[in-house]
Amino acid sequence: MKIGVVGLGSMGYGIAASLLRSGHEVFGADVNADALGRLRAEGGAKEELAAAAPQLDALVVVVLNAAQAEDVLFGKHGLAGRLPAGAVVMVCVTVAPDFARSAAQRCGENDLHFLDAPISGGSMKAAQGKLSIMASGTPEAFARARPALDAMAETVFELGDTAGAGSAMKAVNQMLAGVHIAAMAEAITFGMTQGIDPETFLKVILRCAGTSWMLENRAPHVVSGDFTPHSAIDIWPKDLGIVLDAARAAKFAAPVTAAALQQFIAASGMGLGREDDAALVKVYARNAGLTLPGTGN
Amino acid sequence: MKIGVVGLGSMGYGIAASLLRSGHEVFGADVNADALGRLRAEGGAKEELAAAAPQLDALVVVVLNAAQAEDVLFGKHGLAGRLPAGAVVMVCVTVAPDFARSAAQRCGENDLHFLDAPISGGSMKAAQGKLSIMASGTPEAFARARPALDAMAETVFELGDTAGAGSAMKAVNQMLAGVHIAAMAEAITFGMTQGIDPETFLKVILRCAGTSWMLENRAPHVVSGDFTPHSAIDIWPKDLGIVLDAARAAKFAAPVTAAALQQFIAASGMGLGREDDAALVKVYARNAGLTLPGTGN
Repeated sequence: MKIGVVGLGSMGYGIAASLLRSGHEVFGADVNADALGRLRAEGGAKEELAAAAPQLDALVVVVLNAAQAEDVLFGKHGLAGRLPAGAVVMVCVTVAPDFARSAAQRCGENDLHFLDAPISGGSMKAAQGKLSIMASGTPEAFARARPALDAMAETVFELGDTAGAGSAMKAVNQMLAGVHIAAMAEAITFGMTQGIDPETFLKVILRCAGTSWMLENRAPHVVSGDFTPHSAIDIWPKDLGIVLDAARAAKFAAPVTAAALQQFIAASGMGLGREDDAALVKVYARNAGLTLPGTGN
Repeated sequence: MKIGVVGLGSMGYGIAASLLRSGHEVFGADVNADALGRLRAEGGAKEELAAAAPQLDALVVVVLNAAQAEDVLFGKHGLAGRLPAGAVVMVCVTVAPDFARSAAQRCGENDLHFLDAPISGGSMKAAQGKLSIMASGTPEAFARARPALDAMAETVFELGDTAGAGSAMKAVNQMLAGVHIAAMAEAITFGMTQGIDPETFLKVILRCAGTSWMLENRAPHVVSGDFTPHSAIDIWPKDLGIVLDAARAAKFAAPVTAAALQQFIAASGMGLGREDDAALVKVYARNAGLTLPGTGN
């Protein structure tokens, strides 16, 4: 297939590379010319995506947020108006379910299929073509997207025939993941106030009922004092913001998520927005006057 | 060894049975005469624990809270004054680290060894002698307690030579476990407002980064609508209260734990205190007007 990939960040680049490996013709686009040059050097099409749009079978959107996806599809780039009838648009961005529904409707008005297809798994899984995709859309949209899904994903959760369900499931997952990171940060620093060093915390909790996927993944960053960003703090004000906007619209009170969000906002306010999200511990450490391993603060 | 076990609830009974299986002579005590009768029928000593106290090698305290442990050791039962010099007292109750330190000191004044030994794993693991024990105390206390620990536990975390460290680690574990239950309850019901039924939630989240030990253990109770108590709601106002008291004393702000505690208090206020802690979903469901699987509310 001829597939366009808009957004060649750590996730989008891995998706584009996986599509190339599976034999598709891949047209990349990114504001970062280096990423696009690298993709072309690895076999990506030389033609500009915008120029090739009328020939594409599928467009995969992997930008940062709904505002960028809006620009790509309907705003200043307006690709939804340039794709051929019958092409499939896959939006892999974490967006509000309402945005996914609205984008699907507007794509339908352009005779395009739409797959609400947020992704999970991190940049390494993206590069390996082993993402998890929480997808919803019409059977036709799934059928058109299938070759791309096969190249990108290890697991595709098929969550129904209407856009919005995929994004809703992603929101639920982010809600849990964000709260679990905050709980890890709160507990590992609370433990320090009680004389439990982070290394002992990790050794014991990994074998106890207090563990979580996020704790197992992120607490080692705290123990080693390495906050090189795998997933950045600033993801969370955005993603938990999506969760709490949707919750408020549904008149659903989510006090635990709301408390976690405030901690991520505080971290961002401390200038930690581009550090690894495990750096949330620095909010707690600063408040309580604790010295974290390897950081001197 | 001659071992006394005070408190024959679901955890204490399992501990007593495991000690019996390992060949120890076990003297039980409980306000519930049925539990004591059952233990004696299974081979427990017929003599009253209080009368046998001067012959005991070890005393295992598995009551509900610090107030009961205080009564057992120093208050109306005053067993610390009746045990022989050199015996070891193991307090397996979830208590504040300060209480553990104070109890250790007072036991020391009675020439007793003290092991701060909170337990984790649930009643089934207790019955199988496969608990996790987060223990701290002097090498002498560990040595005296070893035969009992071997009978009770699959894993003994040795957390240092002073009482308080074991209870601190238990508090940290409970902090995480309690927040994770609240996060599960908040997310599964938020998902319902977004069209995701609990069964789909469970199927997808178990394979995603949003999962946790507690979610895997408790979310199935929500899916099946079965709130038979394995661990009750009312555990959490107590245990998260211990956490937040210790945090406040250390001037440590724990906003996520504080939010979770409020939800457990609300559940208890709704009359759910003796239901399984997964029944926390009912607080969210009532607030948002959701109908949970199998409950009609």
